[in-house]
Amino acid sequence: MRIRLDLAYDGTDFSGWAAQPGRRTVEGEVSAALATVLRAAEPVRLTVAGRTDAGVHARGQVAHADVDPVAYAAAPGRSARTPGEAVAARLRGILPSDIVVREVSGAPPGFDARFSAIWRRYRYRICEDPARLDPLRSRDTVLVGTPLGVDVMNVASASLLGLHDFAAFCRKREGASTIRTLTAYRWDRDEDGTVVATVVADAFCHSMVRALVGAVVPVGAGRVGQEFAGAVLRAGARDPRVKVMPAHGLSLEEVGYPAVGDLAARAVEARARREAST
Amino acid sequence: MRIRLDLAYDGTDFSGWAAQPGRRTVEGEVSAALATVLRAAEPVRLTVAGRTDAGVHARGQVAHADVDPVAYAAAPGRSARTPGEAVAARLRGILPSDIVVREVSGAPPGFDARFSAIWRRYRYRICEDPARLDPLRSRDTVLVGTPLGVDVMNVASASLLGLHDFAAFCRKREGASTIRTLTAYRWDRDEDGTVVATVVADAFCHSMVRALVGAVVPVGAGRVGQEFAGAVLRAGARDPRVKVMPAHGLSLEEVGYPAVGDLAARAVEARARREAST
Repeated sequence: MRIRLDLAYDGTDFSGWAAQPGRRTVEGEVSAALATVLRAAEPVRLTVAGRTDAGVHARGQVAHADVDPVAYAAAPGRSARTPGEAVAARLRGILPSDIVVREVSGAPPGFDARFSAIWRRYRYRICEDPARLDPLRSRDTVLVGTPLGVDVMNVASASLLGLHDFAAFCRKREGASTIRTLTAYRWDRDEDGTVVATVVADAFCHSMVRALVGAVVPVGAGRVGQEFAGAVLRAGARDPRVKVMPAHGLSLEEVGYPAVGDLAARAVEARARREAST
Repeated sequence: MRIRLDLAYDGTDFSGWAAQPGRRTVEGEVSAALATVLRAAEPVRLTVAGRTDAGVHARGQVAHADVDPVAYAAAPGRSARTPGEAVAARLRGILPSDIVVREVSGAPPGFDARFSAIWRRYRYRICEDPARLDPLRSRDTVLVGTPLGVDVMNVASASLLGLHDFAAFCRKREGASTIRTLTAYRWDRDEDGTVVATVVADAFCHSMVRALVGAVVPVGAGRVGQEFAGAVLRAGARDPRVKVMPAHGLSLEEVGYPAVGDLAARAVEARARREAST
């Protein structure tokens, strides 16, 4: 049977999501903990909605795993909890404090954490002034040290919206499509002055959000005009003036899925379109 | 001459504010950095508005130091910065990332960071549900693992407001007054569900905020009635049912001072009233 895991993590001390021998990764920790809870002989394989890089955080990550239904159903023992509640509680008892298990549940038919997803929402946090940095938020806030014009950043960001080939913002991978639909990209200044980007697309290529941010920050800083980001997109090639921004400002906030009846069809379609891409 | 320092820090990795031999403290770090910047032979002595305990954070701490006016005036060198801006920038270059220097300025006549202060505002953050904990806020959020009724907590908190002997919430110290004026104590649930206390008084005894929180959390959890906190206050002695809550949920947010003309008079009055107390 397939289970869905909703997770959050502080990415600071992880070498990213994906398991790697000898490295501390989120997948490695969760796989091993799940094997312990379900008494599996080997780490339980996970498939994830967003394969976050080293240092990137998540508040709304989603993964799935195919597990032994007998072990899953047996998890509550004699308690009145559902199997999902029991597995979640036991994972919380095992996992380190930088991983939070929000929920574990039986996945609906056709659910695939990666290929059923219809959108991913990321957030990027920037502090302009070293005097205003909150030391309790330095793990997920990047200091740029220059004032930013949020209005002009929003003009630049809006020029990137829609269905495009985002090759200029992606690391090239043989055979992988770089065509995506960017459905939201906006900037706000929150109550403590932090400049926050919200970025939503059907899916993202590797380091794409950090490159999209890197194309708009120079606009906000006044180093290039507001047409810069759109021009880079249309040129279709990586531009040395676009810096891939630091990982620690980035967090995967939420993943969207279609209604249960559409999960399987969405997975087939997405898999065909993006095979071998992330 | 006297300078004012506005500071913020993540208290996680400090043994509190006050310098102690062989311990990493905020005062120790700032004193040493200030001596380096001002080329003083010894660490510069600091006086602080709120002597935070080990693990307690600050977003709005205020300190003062008496420094060599020649060294202070010389800090900008040939730059156009004011001495305060120059000292702040150089402190930022020296201090570790868990201390943020918000501002350095020449203090007005009569200013004393501790005794001129007329109020201190603290914040305490609680998460009720391990599934909803934000792993990026676990450094300044305490997990209680039980649902809390914010409305009934506000009733209990309001019963503590005013001028009282807070001996029931203070660690006893010979000769030190435990009479304080609690001017605000309210609870709110923020947009991500975190339960947040705002506590304001003219001054606080040692561990008083954490004991005030500990007197109201059992009310919110339904373990005692809403009259509990007020009854403890009136009993005037520490109650074993009042747990001093963990340090890491607490942050000193802001310190209030009177208008410049009233600074010296306030310092004389406060010093007389609270001599030997913090």
